[in-house]
Amino acid sequence: MIQRAVILSTGDEITTGKVVDSNSNYLADKLNEIGVDLVAVLTVGDVPERLEWAWRTAMQMADLVLSTGGIGPTADDLTTETIARITGKPLWRHEPSVEHMQRLFSSMNRVMPENNIKQALFPETAEVIPNPLGTAPGFRMAVLQQNHTSHLVVMPGVPREMKPMMEEQVIPWIRTNRGNDKIFATRIFQTFGISESGLDEQVAGLIRPEEAKVGFRASFPQISLKVMVEDLPGIAERRLDELSERVRGRVGNYIYGEGEITMEQVVAELLTEKNLKLAVAESCTGGLIGHRITNVPGSSRFFVGDLVTYSNEMKQGILGVRDETLRQHGAVSEECVIEMAAGARKRSGADVAIATSGIAGPEGGTPDRPVGTVCIALVADDVRVSRRYQMRGTRDWVKLLTSQVALDWLRRFALGLPLGESILFRR
Amino acid sequence: MIQRAVILSTGDEITTGKVVDSNSNYLADKLNEIGVDLVAVLTVGDVPERLEWAWRTAMQMADLVLSTGGIGPTADDLTTETIARITGKPLWRHEPSVEHMQRLFSSMNRVMPENNIKQALFPETAEVIPNPLGTAPGFRMAVLQQNHTSHLVVMPGVPREMKPMMEEQVIPWIRTNRGNDKIFATRIFQTFGISESGLDEQVAGLIRPEEAKVGFRASFPQISLKVMVEDLPGIAERRLDELSERVRGRVGNYIYGEGEITMEQVVAELLTEKNLKLAVAESCTGGLIGHRITNVPGSSRFFVGDLVTYSNEMKQGILGVRDETLRQHGAVSEECVIEMAAGARKRSGADVAIATSGIAGPEGGTPDRPVGTVCIALVADDVRVSRRYQMRGTRDWVKLLTSQVALDWLRRFALGLPLGESILFRR
Repeated sequence: MIQRAVILSTGDEITTGKVVDSNSNYLADKLNEIGVDLVAVLTVGDVPERLEWAWRTAMQMADLVLSTGGIGPTADDLTTETIARITGKPLWRHEPSVEHMQRLFSSMNRVMPENNIKQALFPETAEVIPNPLGTAPGFRMAVLQQNHTSHLVVMPGVPREMKPMMEEQVIPWIRTNRGNDKIFATRIFQTFGISESGLDEQVAGLIRPEEAKVGFRASFPQISLKVMVEDLPGIAERRLDELSERVRGRVGNYIYGEGEITMEQVVAELLTEKNLKLAVAESCTGGLIGHRITNVPGSSRFFVGDLVTYSNEMKQGILGVRDETLRQHGAVSEECVIEMAAGARKRSGADVAIATSGIAGPEGGTPDRPVGTVCIALVADDVRVSRRYQMRGTRDWVKLLTSQVALDWLRRFALGLPLGESILFRR
Repeated sequence: MIQRAVILSTGDEITTGKVVDSNSNYLADKLNEIGVDLVAVLTVGDVPERLEWAWRTAMQMADLVLSTGGIGPTADDLTTETIARITGKPLWRHEPSVEHMQRLFSSMNRVMPENNIKQALFPETAEVIPNPLGTAPGFRMAVLQQNHTSHLVVMPGVPREMKPMMEEQVIPWIRTNRGNDKIFATRIFQTFGISESGLDEQVAGLIRPEEAKVGFRASFPQISLKVMVEDLPGIAERRLDELSERVRGRVGNYIYGEGEITMEQVVAELLTEKNLKLAVAESCTGGLIGHRITNVPGSSRFFVGDLVTYSNEMKQGILGVRDETLRQHGAVSEECVIEMAAGARKRSGADVAIATSGIAGPEGGTPDRPVGTVCIALVADDVRVSRRYQMRGTRDWVKLLTSQVALDWLRRFALGLPLGESILFRR
């Protein structure tokens, strides 16, 4: 019965920091989807005694050990012989795999190097998992431990060979051996304007631990809340819907989207749906708002352009900001951003325009307008709003946060919500 | 004496596959740089008994245990209390950390939530590592094991807080405790216009394995080459200088900078030094070039603005692109980008202007101009150059690569080098 897994991740390229271990991330996600609990990921380099330690430890900890890599033809590919040694099973040669490799090589008009034979050797009792996309087959074997059976699954390290093997051959087999009819139903809420701890406080008491697992993820400026319900199919989804209603009732003000969606995607959907053309005028954010918006495929349907006027001369020449405004209030003022937004709207013929101006730092602060002072304005047919904020943090951070607030204004505008209200950091 | 390390990577977001564990990759790279052997990375979720297992195991295996994350204010942040439990050290409250947090919150005009106090609790004997960039300080403590001392280092999980802490406070401390008179002298060469394997081929035979360790890192669009010499102080640096000369002699054409420097930083330095004002006109890159340039502090010294003209009407109205040009050649043409750059230069009074227009995809391709078709132009006093490229890849990738080529053009222009020559991907 497969309930708890360990992922083994091996290779000097990982332990020396040369390569990010994205295979483990992929496998963790797949295990989570089918409701297998991932107890640990053990990562070691290509050193025989460390590999041996990792395999022994993994087999003790889990019903399922998933391993990728280490089954190539070269001397530092040690996975198969490590397993043979610690399980005491001799290696045998699997003729169909030898033939498969020979066919692959002759189809490329090449002679198979002798060391490739190594990839057709498997520990006794192993079941070979064919690899139609490469030379190295995978294998699966059951190893009896003191109080449980540990199923070892060995796959190639190349993602384009490993992923189809996992999805087509390994996952179906895991599903039939899970010994649990329950599934996981999951929902993610994307929030803005509330801190992770603030969100935690709001949700605490709303969902009891036995009802669902609640998780937070802060990948600034995105803070997301995940609710996971384990139950029988049909019931899990229904219970998740009920819990989601509770969450929306409590923190709905801060939720800008559900599922794996970004703020710019939400804005793009809303503006496209409402057929509103958007123009942007940026100063301190330097093009970041336009960049984020144009990351969304199809943004040309609503986005006409972005006038990044970094110098005062450009603010005047391109956007028509008045000399008097700059002299009297400065470029970082609610008056200036209103004129920037109005100018961008007029110059572009857009329905709505948003503008930013501020001091991203580290230089340029004054006692009156310290680093992090940011003004934002939105201008549309019958709307003219501007606000001044005091942000904190490094240059990147001020730029990113400002772009997020501006996008949130556009979302609120499209939905007819009040602007700049749920926002932290308001001065 | 610190020679062998284990990285502890904790958090449900990793074991459920929601987040790629990039912190461990960063730390593995840093340990490799200073010559500490990484024995294993142990990854577990936020489950008390698993955390306990991971800490106990790591302490047995290594002189140094590096951990990131799990020290936030929420209930699933369990690192500190786990260490306190297994070492038998009670928690104490570190007043300077409480005050630091209170100052942070009050500077945001917010009251500190009660649960934040948790982040100022440390196991007895721990030495607090201040975190100027966030609320959670790190800490360090020595724990006696059967036959060695294990040094625990606990850092925040947020990369922008963790990395400065590692580089400024942890690495210097590790260096002085390595118990080896030799040091590592390291130099990084930043390249563009050559693939990782191309670079490998060029450098192979240039440096023998016993002379230095050579590593490659591809973090697109940046491909860097690292040369590491281990030797006594004074000698290591001298040998590194000699090897660096060899590297420059062989692949100098592709090197745009040395050390941890980005293409935009190089461009900013050159334009500032030569007192050249820059204007940008973007279409397919949507503001990314302006965003990258304004990520460099002080960019207002040379960057006047960026006219992102996504629609054809904006290209005409703002930049003066001629109707005839758009009708005859289309917006993605060498003719159009030349007019865009010339228009941006004229409108802004800048010395040099660069322009991009292309099809980032996934939609919008035609047989004539498939997705990935990109035109770039540069216009200055006596320069008017444009080129058409065929890029490959996703929308983000086309945007990023285009911005990199455009920045490289600016670098070459400032240095008086021919434009668009060392570039791959030329159509």
